[in-house]
Amino acid sequence: MTKMLKGIAASDGIAAAKAYMLVQPDLSFSETTIDDPEAEVSRLNDAVAASKKDLEIIKAKAAENLGDEEAQVFEAHLTILSDPEMLGQISDKIKNDKVNAEAAVKSITDMFIQMFEGMTDNAYMQERAGDVRDVTKRLQSHLLGVTMPSPALIDEEVIIVAHDLTPSDTAQLDRKFVKGFITDIGGRTSHSAIMSRTLEIPAIVGSGNATDEVKAGQKVIIDGIHGDALVEPTDDELKQYEQKAKDFAAQKAEWARLKNEQSVTADGKQVTLGANIGTPKDVEAATDNGAEAVGLFRSEFLYMDASELPSEDDQFEAYKQAVEGMNGKQVVVRTMDIGGDKELPYLPLPDEQNPFLGYRAIRISLDRQDIFRTQLRALLRASAYGRLAIMFPMIATVKEFKDAKAIFEEEKAKLVADGVKVSDDIEVGMMMEIPAAAMIADKLAKYADFFSIGTNDLIQYSMAADRGNERVSYLYQPYNPSLLRLIKNIIDASHQEGKWTGMCGEMAGDQIAVPLLAGLGLDEFSMSATSILKTRSLLRKLDTTKMKELSDKAVTECETTEEVVDLVHQYTD
Amino acid sequence: MTKMLKGIAASDGIAAAKAYMLVQPDLSFSETTIDDPEAEVSRLNDAVAASKKDLEIIKAKAAENLGDEEAQVFEAHLTILSDPEMLGQISDKIKNDKVNAEAAVKSITDMFIQMFEGMTDNAYMQERAGDVRDVTKRLQSHLLGVTMPSPALIDEEVIIVAHDLTPSDTAQLDRKFVKGFITDIGGRTSHSAIMSRTLEIPAIVGSGNATDEVKAGQKVIIDGIHGDALVEPTDDELKQYEQKAKDFAAQKAEWARLKNEQSVTADGKQVTLGANIGTPKDVEAATDNGAEAVGLFRSEFLYMDASELPSEDDQFEAYKQAVEGMNGKQVVVRTMDIGGDKELPYLPLPDEQNPFLGYRAIRISLDRQDIFRTQLRALLRASAYGRLAIMFPMIATVKEFKDAKAIFEEEKAKLVADGVKVSDDIEVGMMMEIPAAAMIADKLAKYADFFSIGTNDLIQYSMAADRGNERVSYLYQPYNPSLLRLIKNIIDASHQEGKWTGMCGEMAGDQIAVPLLAGLGLDEFSMSATSILKTRSLLRKLDTTKMKELSDKAVTECETTEEVVDLVHQYTD
Repeated sequence: MTKMLKGIAASDGIAAAKAYMLVQPDLSFSETTIDDPEAEVSRLNDAVAASKKDLEIIKAKAAENLGDEEAQVFEAHLTILSDPEMLGQISDKIKNDKVNAEAAVKSITDMFIQMFEGMTDNAYMQERAGDVRDVTKRLQSHLLGVTMPSPALIDEEVIIVAHDLTPSDTAQLDRKFVKGFITDIGGRTSHSAIMSRTLEIPAIVGSGNATDEVKAGQKVIIDGIHGDALVEPTDDELKQYEQKAKDFAAQKAEWARLKNEQSVTADGKQVTLGANIGTPKDVEAATDNGAEAVGLFRSEFLYMDASELPSEDDQFEAYKQAVEGMNGKQVVVRTMDIGGDKELPYLPLPDEQNPFLGYRAIRISLDRQDIFRTQLRALLRASAYGRLAIMFPMIATVKEFKDAKAIFEEEKAKLVADGVKVSDDIEVGMMMEIPAAAMIADKLAKYADFFSIGTNDLIQYSMAADRGNERVSYLYQPYNPSLLRLIKNIIDASHQEGKWTGMCGEMAGDQIAVPLLAGLGLDEFSMSATSILKTRSLLRKLDTTKMKELSDKAVTECETTEEVVDLVHQYTD
Repeated sequence: MTKMLKGIAASDGIAAAKAYMLVQPDLSFSETTIDDPEAEVSRLNDAVAASKKDLEIIKAKAAENLGDEEAQVFEAHLTILSDPEMLGQISDKIKNDKVNAEAAVKSITDMFIQMFEGMTDNAYMQERAGDVRDVTKRLQSHLLGVTMPSPALIDEEVIIVAHDLTPSDTAQLDRKFVKGFITDIGGRTSHSAIMSRTLEIPAIVGSGNATDEVKAGQKVIIDGIHGDALVEPTDDELKQYEQKAKDFAAQKAEWARLKNEQSVTADGKQVTLGANIGTPKDVEAATDNGAEAVGLFRSEFLYMDASELPSEDDQFEAYKQAVEGMNGKQVVVRTMDIGGDKELPYLPLPDEQNPFLGYRAIRISLDRQDIFRTQLRALLRASAYGRLAIMFPMIATVKEFKDAKAIFEEEKAKLVADGVKVSDDIEVGMMMEIPAAAMIADKLAKYADFFSIGTNDLIQYSMAADRGNERVSYLYQPYNPSLLRLIKNIIDASHQEGKWTGMCGEMAGDQIAVPLLAGLGLDEFSMSATSILKTRSLLRKLDTTKMKELSDKAVTECETTEEVVDLVHQYTD
């Protein structure tokens, strides 16, 4: 019988293929006495050879997709598999103790792991313990004849089934083969969900138990629009889904026709639809999807993809490329947002009990002005090549904004004095992602040229619930009246001062949220490039007077998220 | 010359005594060759004996002040010092290698530490590594003739100088000998500051560098009212401070006369001044200090001081004792607030990236209803013996409050059906400590009988700044207009529905905040018992019409904390 799984719709689209289980296989075994040690050693050597072959492929793909540094990890694994000392000891153990290869591998590698871990004065050697552990798992999998999966080893069309996908997993996904994925955990804003939209791969996250319910090789249909998956579907069901896939393709084609159309509501109110980007390379996808601006350039990727602090010139080139690529359309660059869950290997941050409530973003920039001023100079120089705007992340108080702005003005004055060309009308705004800032938006609007609402953080701080923590994920409520009131406060305050407000969180492209945000008067919606055309299509059907009535009701009358969602459906269905 | 130190005034009062440095001593040494191994072994044995003597004293004090479980740690240390195996190896090393005892101790204990740490499968043995490390430090200090300090070893009048004080340090402070303390780090709401007020010991926290600036035995004056300390004062300065101490004592005597007076402002508005308590034993100090209510009974102490979940009967006895002790005055019990930085050894909580944004308080109670229902039944039974109220911590949404209240009603109905006597008018309220809840206070006020503002959490969440994190401590701004607006929203919403609002955070007894809170219309101020009379004295000088003008201005006109503080001074000085 067909099995039905339900999860969170993470990325639109419909796909069918056989399941690839990206899960840790069972590596348990019994120790047995063997009669033919030579045969057992040869079995060991075969497993070593097979493991090396895997690692060569994974290393090559990692170098291609993730860069040389990431690939080094697998080079280290290969070195371990070529270590005559360790392999010799394993062979000796097989011969002397007449035990099976699995038991010999475990016994010897455990010894090496313990030795490395005991070197508490040597962090480098301690890390080697982890490498030996990883290599041992792969070796055991080949001895046991089970598959140790890796996205890099996929060479046919599949739907990936996993507990969760790590950033390095998603970086290695090959769209040619991976037709979709389904995970046990995660929400619409988890890393894997965001990546699925960027890659335009249909995906379902947070299914709860897909890895238990699906077996390797079973046929799976996933519907990333509704969050449903069918395991071992009937022919009839397959046909129905083929029709749905066709309908979806037709709808996408219709959206594509809106690429060069204006973002305008049914009653003629114009808004801006922007893209969120991480590197200048993303500009192409933004313009391909009809972006009218870059509402958020996450500059921290320049820092995270480097092995040392990026130089002023390197940053300048990146910002210049982005503004030139957008060809006169505005590019809002957010200054470095490091800390929280984003670390730089070359900039050690203090260990913190609650990093999301700690030393991050503008708090680091105001403290480490050397880093901040370098970035501001790069931005100022790039401003001469297009329409660049700057915003500061994690502003909580008026003082922080004024301090950051003053540093900006100092660097600007220095460059001008040095005869460097900088634009004269750079808008300097701020992220609105801290409740305290939202509460005094009227005061901040006197100093900031614009606000950009960062919903992920604003929700997690106003609800006091870590957005990555499964146990409190029920509190991630983008439609809760409390959040809508904060948003209303921000937008109204900016308009009062003749300024504008954008939103650059996931919520800006959410189909339930867009009618509410249109009603609240949001000026710019910035989102994953692939969501822009769908949102433009939706906005063209909305009447702002009616949406204002909707959002007023939601803000004043509703008590819960559920009531708000019902109300949106009443107004838009 | 007299040296002046500045810090944060943590606890009122003035004291002078010589400095006791509660800092880790320098334990470095050189390895030397010795001629007389027997003499060296006897030096070792003397150090072992001295260390044992220390540990016996510390153990006895720990058993008295902290309980038997904490004392076990020191028993373990004593066992290590009696281990013939380790001591034998150290003696052998001295004799065989002709090295000094310090070097022999280091070499042998390092080996034991490494061995224990290598036992990665055995958490118990791994922890022993830490014990050996602690014991070794004490042993080395005696060999080197330097002092390894401990609050338990103090037997004369001193001012403690420390980087910070841990809960176990403060628990062992003997008021007879410890006349005050000064720390490098911490703020007005850090653990050590709160304890200093409870113990009524003058204290300065966050001095920055007291441990560098003060030497053991130097005379120190600390002024906990203004946050100043003088090192090696002149006779004239000593005299001046003696006068100040006298003035303060006179003021305290004046406050004491207010013990049975009403809490009423200059223009006749009555408010309630309550005490925050942790156990029923604290009721005595509350009534001694003129408390008109217990505004917060932190019930988690019943859980934290136990070795398993406290039974319904044990809890019932505690709540009954508290309400009876308050003799008809209201006692507001907050249901279990575990998680965040409060752990229970017998209730393992998940490891979390950001525990303050995680699974805690009502989130645990709604999930672990077995624990929650036991507590509610105990509370319901105790309600028959006095005026008991209940509040739920960390409510973020209307749904959470309704769910918690429904469980309360279920347990109440069951008890009534069973013929158990319960009060018919138990007020059921909620903590206001999450920004999302403050934003929809009008909706929550329809269901909750009262609000109690928890400022520590409300500040840390609205500012997105961990209150225990030094790097972002500048964002702990109780007077920031953003926070005052949230507080105003909460108070106004409760009054609109005919309900009342209290405050049970540190801010309720803060001399700058009280005029603002009086102006905003706060109904109940609940604080450390020792702050009540001072606050009553202050309130009696305030005119609410004038304070309303002050708070209106602060909320509408001020942009920063500094502006608010200036305004308060203008209105009250």
